[in-house]
Amino acid sequence: MSQSDTIHHWNGTRYQTILATAATGGAMSITYGEADPFTGPPTHVHQGEDEIFVVLEGEMIFEVAGKRMSCGPMGTAFVPRGAPHSFMTGADGARCITVLTPGGFEGFFAEMARGQFQMPQDMATVAAIAARYGSHIAGPGLAQREMQHA
Amino acid sequence: MSQSDTIHHWNGTRYQTILATAATGGAMSITYGEADPFTGPPTHVHQGEDEIFVVLEGEMIFEVAGKRMSCGPMGTAFVPRGAPHSFMTGADGARCITVLTPGGFEGFFAEMARGQFQMPQDMATVAAIAARYGSHIAGPGLAQREMQHA
Repeated sequence: MSQSDTIHHWNGTRYQTILATAATGGAMSITYGEADPFTGPPTHVHQGEDEIFVVLEGEMIFEVAGKRMSCGPMGTAFVPRGAPHSFMTGADGARCITVLTPGGFEGFFAEMARGQFQMPQDMATVAAIAARYGSHIAGPGLAQREMQHA
Repeated sequence: MSQSDTIHHWNGTRYQTILATAATGGAMSITYGEADPFTGPPTHVHQGEDEIFVVLEGEMIFEVAGKRMSCGPMGTAFVPRGAPHSFMTGADGARCITVLTPGGFEGFFAEMARGQFQMPQDMATVAAIAARYGSHIAGPGLAQREMQHA
C-alpha cells in the first residue's frame, strides 16, 4: 500500500498522494482530492504528462483544449500532455482521483500547501513553481471565469 | 467523458470500462469493478502492462510477487509488468478501479463475460484467451487458495 497520510490543503481542495511516483519506478502518481464547490485551477498545460481524472462523487466540468464536458461519479477525463485544461466542481463539490503519467507532479501540491499561495495575488510565484514541474499556466480557469459572473 | 454503459459480469465481479484505450491514444484503460466477497482472479502475469488498483470501498488483499498487503479505501497497489499477482476481496466485497498502462486489456473482461467461462472448469479456455491479451496464468490465486481452507 502506497497511501500517504499527509493531506495537503490548497485552493479549496484537500490533496492526498495515494500512489507515490517512487513506488512506481517513475511511471505515475495518483492523487486523491476532495474539492469545495465551484473551485478549480487556472487553465494550464502539463508539457510532459498525460493527466486522467476519475470523478468519485459530485460533479466536475472539465475544459480540455477549449471543449467542455461534465462528469459525474465514475466519469473520466483524459487530458493528453500539451493540452490546455482546467475544471470546476459543481454545487456539492467533488471527490476525485487524478493520475499523472509519468509521475513527479505531486510535489507541486505539497509546495502550494506549504506556501499557501493565493490566486490571483500570488500567481507569479505559483507560475514559477509550476514551471519547475513542467506545467505552464495559460490563463484563468473555468472556475475563475464562471465565478466572475456569479 | 469516456464512460461506457456496458457492464460485464464475470467471476463474481461487475466490470465497467470507464476510460477506453481508444480515448487515450493507447496509453491506458481504466476499469471500475464491484466484486463479491472472497473473490479474485488466478495468479497471473501481464507481460506488457503495469496494473494499478485503487480500492474505493471494502478491503482487498493483494499478493504481488509473493508479498501480501491489505488495502482499504484509497489504498493502492502497483503491479509492475512481469510480476505474478492476484487478490482476494474481504468479507464485504469491494469496489475498485483498475488502471492498465498501456491499454488494451479491457477486451479480456468482455470476452470472459460473453463466454461466462467458469474456473477451474474452463481454465484452458480462459488461459488461451488471456494469452491473446499478453497475460499468462501462473496458478491458483489468493482467493482460490484461501477459500479451499474455508
